[in-house]
Amino acid sequence: MSIQSVTTARAHPTATWERVFEKLDRKGPSLNIQIRRAIVYAIEIGLLVSGDRLPSSRQLSNMLGIARNTVTAAYQMLIDEGVLVSRERSGIFVGDRPATMRRPVTERKPDTIWSKRFAARPSDFRHFNKPRDWLTYPHPFLYGQFDPTIFPINNWREAVRVTSSHQAICGWAGDLIDDDDPDLVEQLCVHVLPKRGIFARPEEVIITIGSQQGLSMLVQLLCGTKTRVGIEDPGYPDMRNMVKLATGGYTILSMDKDGVIPDETFGSCDMAYLTPGHQCPTTAIAPLKRRQALLQKAEANDVLLIEDDYEADLLLENSSELPCLKSLDTTGRVIYVGSFSKALAPGLRIGFIVAHPAVVEELRVLRRLLMRHPPTNNQHILGTFISLGHYQQHLTKTGLILARRAGLIAQLLPKYLPQCSWRRDPGAKSFWIRLPEGCNSRVLEGLARERGVLVEAGDIFFANQQDGVRFMRLGFTSIVESHIESGLAILGSLIEQSRVQH
Amino acid sequence: MSIQSVTTARAHPTATWERVFEKLDRKGPSLNIQIRRAIVYAIEIGLLVSGDRLPSSRQLSNMLGIARNTVTAAYQMLIDEGVLVSRERSGIFVGDRPATMRRPVTERKPDTIWSKRFAARPSDFRHFNKPRDWLTYPHPFLYGQFDPTIFPINNWREAVRVTSSHQAICGWAGDLIDDDDPDLVEQLCVHVLPKRGIFARPEEVIITIGSQQGLSMLVQLLCGTKTRVGIEDPGYPDMRNMVKLATGGYTILSMDKDGVIPDETFGSCDMAYLTPGHQCPTTAIAPLKRRQALLQKAEANDVLLIEDDYEADLLLENSSELPCLKSLDTTGRVIYVGSFSKALAPGLRIGFIVAHPAVVEELRVLRRLLMRHPPTNNQHILGTFISLGHYQQHLTKTGLILARRAGLIAQLLPKYLPQCSWRRDPGAKSFWIRLPEGCNSRVLEGLARERGVLVEAGDIFFANQQDGVRFMRLGFTSIVESHIESGLAILGSLIEQSRVQH
Repeated sequence: MSIQSVTTARAHPTATWERVFEKLDRKGPSLNIQIRRAIVYAIEIGLLVSGDRLPSSRQLSNMLGIARNTVTAAYQMLIDEGVLVSRERSGIFVGDRPATMRRPVTERKPDTIWSKRFAARPSDFRHFNKPRDWLTYPHPFLYGQFDPTIFPINNWREAVRVTSSHQAICGWAGDLIDDDDPDLVEQLCVHVLPKRGIFARPEEVIITIGSQQGLSMLVQLLCGTKTRVGIEDPGYPDMRNMVKLATGGYTILSMDKDGVIPDETFGSCDMAYLTPGHQCPTTAIAPLKRRQALLQKAEANDVLLIEDDYEADLLLENSSELPCLKSLDTTGRVIYVGSFSKALAPGLRIGFIVAHPAVVEELRVLRRLLMRHPPTNNQHILGTFISLGHYQQHLTKTGLILARRAGLIAQLLPKYLPQCSWRRDPGAKSFWIRLPEGCNSRVLEGLARERGVLVEAGDIFFANQQDGVRFMRLGFTSIVESHIESGLAILGSLIEQSRVQH
Repeated sequence: MSIQSVTTARAHPTATWERVFEKLDRKGPSLNIQIRRAIVYAIEIGLLVSGDRLPSSRQLSNMLGIARNTVTAAYQMLIDEGVLVSRERSGIFVGDRPATMRRPVTERKPDTIWSKRFAARPSDFRHFNKPRDWLTYPHPFLYGQFDPTIFPINNWREAVRVTSSHQAICGWAGDLIDDDDPDLVEQLCVHVLPKRGIFARPEEVIITIGSQQGLSMLVQLLCGTKTRVGIEDPGYPDMRNMVKLATGGYTILSMDKDGVIPDETFGSCDMAYLTPGHQCPTTAIAPLKRRQALLQKAEANDVLLIEDDYEADLLLENSSELPCLKSLDTTGRVIYVGSFSKALAPGLRIGFIVAHPAVVEELRVLRRLLMRHPPTNNQHILGTFISLGHYQQHLTKTGLILARRAGLIAQLLPKYLPQCSWRRDPGAKSFWIRLPEGCNSRVLEGLARERGVLVEAGDIFFANQQDGVRFMRLGFTSIVESHIESGLAILGSLIEQSRVQH
């Protein structure tokens, strides 16, 4: 690994070094990290090659206007790793590195035509369309996104630290094949599920990549081309899409203000997808009587129930106990789907299914085939986080913040959106708003976005898009309290304008 | 949140506290963490209730034989979080906590019969069956598992630390919807793919939950019931299972010592699954000429190719450049599947697909529907790890260790397994071994396990299990050098015995 010859070392002009370090950002990660990244990158793209001499630490620290110690430390770490080599009294040089293949200069022939190759065209489906840069909007009335001001950074970091010990890494780096981290499963059974009335054994639980993967696996496992699946309308569009992909269609369930009605249509289904905790998107909480009636009808007609309890854990406003369907179920027909995306952070992608052991067993084999298992280090971090009481503390804190935001919006809506009607049941993290006649929510969504206000047009939730043109969802998990009033004022004026035009 | 009444505080006997802390493990995580976990758990299960008085820090430190400071610090953190409350001159007490629902005492009715409900029965498939506790076996000749002695713990920890800053957490905790961490994609394009001859743009790359998810998504996207898919035999069993699940069958491709033969059967397929880097499981490297011939035939017959390059990045023994199919492809028909499971750690579950942008676009929508995206924090950690040069350093180190193990095994096989023939092409991380006549690899696998030696019976790789009864795979990614010879000696004696019995 010796330098070919120090005498051949290129002495780059200052301009080269300025280019190497052009992306240095004082507001970014530590300068040590940035300097090392920049040098490794410059070598990789061939800007620096084996044998090139680096500026002395004094020169580079002057050039970049940073402490010499920082440069020395970064150089030393790269020397320890073999990226750079130090030759006494000569300086520091770029080390050898494995050969990279040359870029082929072959002529590119016409591409295969792909469209005829696809067995499925997922891109044909309608789906949510949130702007990627939503964090830069002053008034993001979005649902289910992350709020940096709420995330429990220090407690999370502690859990990460605990999970990065030598012993812990040996515990999570291996292949679990079809298994989950037993600690996370235990924490779920002990700390999380009992608060929802679910007393599950470990063999009734499987971890998923968010509830999205939970739902998609259940569709794969349970939906053949002839399975009759009942869905809510308005309802969760991704579930509608997945069911349609698997069975070619779906059955629309009757609904009233309490959610799905246990009528003959419901009874005719093999399986029904329900959100009794907070109906998506209307936020309706199904009363206990309705829940019992749904279960009774399901038993009488042998209907399987998928209960998507996507907003559980944050029902702080609701002091009265309202058991989920799963906790009322005595025949093992309810499959319960949950997630930490809403309560903690969607980027983590951790959800879970609680179901009869026979279902979990098949799901494990299916999941193994689809992707093995959710990353073990994240399971380990989350399990540790819960075990230390951090999750419970986070829920308490978040619940209070969200309840305050909701209260403020409820108080301001009559003032700024008097033309609209709305609904938000206790604990829900969004308002479901009906616009006045002549107002189109998709048009409004576009106009509002131009003014820095993000809302979600409600038509996406409807099987027949036309049914939803006057609805919109107003979320408040990502908007700080101080921006709520000004955002609603803008929204109100836009609604008023569109009515006038109409 | 006040304690109901200090005067009612239960004074638990010592036995209760011994039970609370019975799992304390001096070899486990820090005692601070363990004490907090134990108290939070005891409250959760109702062993301690609101108002209970805790032992003084002096009492507890005496009881557990640990430093008083440790107890004080743990108590203080639980007080800060509201789990415990401190009342001056009275002591420390269990705080209030949200009500947990009572366990229902309903009679359990007969369970729904599940078997008739499943649209698919994944558990019917044959698959690998490695013992969960393989780390406790002295001679784990397993393939693809993690070796705690090789994992770059300190460098990984550095990347974790960088990714746990406030700024970094804000960067990864949100929902990317269908996107990936742009930094990881860039690191792949700059540092990882060019070494395999692939010069891809970001829109040609998508991150997956290991290569397993890459393959399963490709099957879902590209395989309809009538798609003719060619597979290798012996070959990767999970791919065979997935294709069968989607299309009802598969086409077995002809093979010789160089891998798949580009004959008429190959040309008749819509799509073929290939492992030219190292044929799974024979380890055969397809020579350049064979690769070119496969591509030519694929172009002439419009066959799509899925190239599973599961063992790339570790080809240190092979100094000559051998471009992958994807790098030779000029028509965009090769879909390249890769992973960090083999080179880094399977528990991370990070892989990737490089393909035509039209394919990546559909895969993003499909992935969004299936599970949104792989956890962003892990993408961020891995991107940082690569950008600092740690991945390259790790490959160099690992390559040398594995080459030494392979050399030792190659040297010892003639001594201990003279009755067998075997193959291992340069860079492969396993030997493919043919047992003498009358020797059954599944029987051998069981006998060897009893003696502490883990090997993999080869029949699992064959479409017709009977064709593989005399093959076994001997991996060496998880066995330390000093245990190799004794393991081979045991294996050799078992083979000899089974021959005598035959």
